[in-house]
Amino acid sequence: MTALRPEIESFEQNGIARTAFARLHDEAVTPLWFGEGDEVTPDFICEAAKASLDQGHTFYTHTRGRTTLRAALKRYLDRLYGVDVHPDRISVPGSAMLSVNISAQMAVSKGDHVIVVSPVWPNIEAVFRVIGAEIEHIRQRPTPQGWLVTADEIIARVREKTRVIFLNSPCNPTGWVMPRAEQLRLLEFCRERDLLIIADEVYHRCVFGASVAPSFVEIAADEDPVIVVNSFSKAWAMTGWRIGWVVAPKRLATVWASLSECFNTGANVFAQAGATAALDQGETFIERQQAKFGKGRELVREAFERHPRLDYIEPQGAFYAFPKVRDLTDSARFAESLRDQMHVGIAPGYTFGPGNESHFRICFARRHDELERGLEEILRFLEG
Amino acid sequence: MTALRPEIESFEQNGIARTAFARLHDEAVTPLWFGEGDEVTPDFICEAAKASLDQGHTFYTHTRGRTTLRAALKRYLDRLYGVDVHPDRISVPGSAMLSVNISAQMAVSKGDHVIVVSPVWPNIEAVFRVIGAEIEHIRQRPTPQGWLVTADEIIARVREKTRVIFLNSPCNPTGWVMPRAEQLRLLEFCRERDLLIIADEVYHRCVFGASVAPSFVEIAADEDPVIVVNSFSKAWAMTGWRIGWVVAPKRLATVWASLSECFNTGANVFAQAGATAALDQGETFIERQQAKFGKGRELVREAFERHPRLDYIEPQGAFYAFPKVRDLTDSARFAESLRDQMHVGIAPGYTFGPGNESHFRICFARRHDELERGLEEILRFLEG
Repeated sequence: MTALRPEIESFEQNGIARTAFARLHDEAVTPLWFGEGDEVTPDFICEAAKASLDQGHTFYTHTRGRTTLRAALKRYLDRLYGVDVHPDRISVPGSAMLSVNISAQMAVSKGDHVIVVSPVWPNIEAVFRVIGAEIEHIRQRPTPQGWLVTADEIIARVREKTRVIFLNSPCNPTGWVMPRAEQLRLLEFCRERDLLIIADEVYHRCVFGASVAPSFVEIAADEDPVIVVNSFSKAWAMTGWRIGWVVAPKRLATVWASLSECFNTGANVFAQAGATAALDQGETFIERQQAKFGKGRELVREAFERHPRLDYIEPQGAFYAFPKVRDLTDSARFAESLRDQMHVGIAPGYTFGPGNESHFRICFARRHDELERGLEEILRFLEG
Repeated sequence: MTALRPEIESFEQNGIARTAFARLHDEAVTPLWFGEGDEVTPDFICEAAKASLDQGHTFYTHTRGRTTLRAALKRYLDRLYGVDVHPDRISVPGSAMLSVNISAQMAVSKGDHVIVVSPVWPNIEAVFRVIGAEIEHIRQRPTPQGWLVTADEIIARVREKTRVIFLNSPCNPTGWVMPRAEQLRLLEFCRERDLLIIADEVYHRCVFGASVAPSFVEIAADEDPVIVVNSFSKAWAMTGWRIGWVVAPKRLATVWASLSECFNTGANVFAQAGATAALDQGETFIERQQAKFGKGRELVREAFERHPRLDYIEPQGAFYAFPKVRDLTDSARFAESLRDQMHVGIAPGYTFGPGNESHFRICFARRHDELERGLEEILRFLEG
């Protein structure tokens, strides 16, 4: 069969899957490659989903999400950000990844121009490649103060055919957190130009020295051209649940209902019960996670900060380290060798967009003994 | 915000949602509007999902689905159809609806031509409208032998720019079942022309006088340009679970892994455990359902067959009746009036594609006392 579109024919597996799938279930490997911690979803969330099943919640729901979940999301957002989000702005179409797809499909046609702040998780680029968009990466620069890209630098790349600016803050893989002033400047520009911002805030609760990262939810008005995509995966350890939410302009409520229906016919119904419990009872768990991630970051700092072969910038958010190996040119081979020789799973830099060939990513949202073992092996490999 | 693509700006809610959402939770309404029965998912399936949660299965899985589920699918398909499906042909990207989207996105670009056999569930048209394809409906004809469309009639519509032929058999809403000879003829043509068939077989176990409907899985070779989309929703009463599967050409296994990752990052992990149980232990439940649907169809026949205002063709599969009201011109108003005056929820014909303005659809996969009450109210309304 050759009936595929050229965009799909040339589609390649991303570097994380490519490195990991060969030894996915191999327990000898210390798995620092994926974007997930090692904690099972907390009991109170699982129990809520099980109770929902016991109550016979196995039918279709509203394609924007169950009423109870949307109400819980409003409470959560209002409390977290000190805002009053209009209920019509909140939808639960399924996973955050699906939400990014729907957002992109709303605004972007083949040949349109899209600005993606990078380094960036490879599936984001994939979303726009499926559409056939022209993708321009604007890469954060390493500076002594951390990873840096300004709103004005982003704005300078906007062209006539630009339809979307995609931002992920806190950033996977760099940990960059977009400051409020930069968010305001970018929003002001996009509001005037009527240009869509897709703000991927799935790491909103994974941030250091604060309880939550600055969010576009705090500054976007009801009709501003901003879609904030969020997820239950990271903050509540629910990666396998495939559920997230969006905050979008109020007037798009019906479009979200229709597109959620068209793409997925709504989200899993009992997973939504778990998500509701997560929002209403999850703060203690989140605080514990934040402490764990903080300690994980310390362990990484100790290992990488003064290493002679590494340039290491400490992340401000998310739960990844993204060091540069100064003399490295082939990150894919580096990842494969580490996997096969040292049995440590890492993600190769190249898959996070251009300019990252010398980098690798590890997830430090892991048990500290396991993380320490992985770090030791990486250091040994760097010496070898 | 006006930054939307024109295809999205003009997007309208489908007729089912439009009629139903206003009174979604109103218990006074007899709900025959949706494509789902009234049975909660069987216990053994729910228990399998709960056990999976208890075992801590809350992490990402392979984006083509858990190994256990794919093995169960192979067993199920081999047993059901007497085939030997190559394991690389089977993927579980999430819901069947998502699978239709991914299949469409694989092959169709804006401006391409797509043939859709209709009457058809409105969300199918929506999938191709999002892409900006040119959609041509070829409508089944009512004949004394039932709804009819031949492979040659479909083939006659193929143009240079045709990229996909979409078929849903057994058909929602007409109950049309494509005969084996017609499947073979169409496959032969599409194989030569390298034209993709998307075969939506989600009602494969909802068929009368047989245990399963003729499937493209039985006749398509490993590399034939056919994607068969299927779902757990209908046969195992799992609409709220949002899970289905595809059988696709072998060489697309990596493309399915990548696109599943890009669109949804895989399916819900513990829902996959429920799905596995459904396949391995579901036959008794399916037989009971088939008997129930058969009795439901009898009740509908008694009510509609000789009615002076109705043309009624008995469905061969699925679980809908799709009668024509001879003097009806506005099916949307008809559905709203029935809802508001008689408290019966039906789906208006217009939403199933051109030529269906005089029709309405009811789902008869319901408790028989409820179905009888609904039918009585519909008859009373037709007399009034």
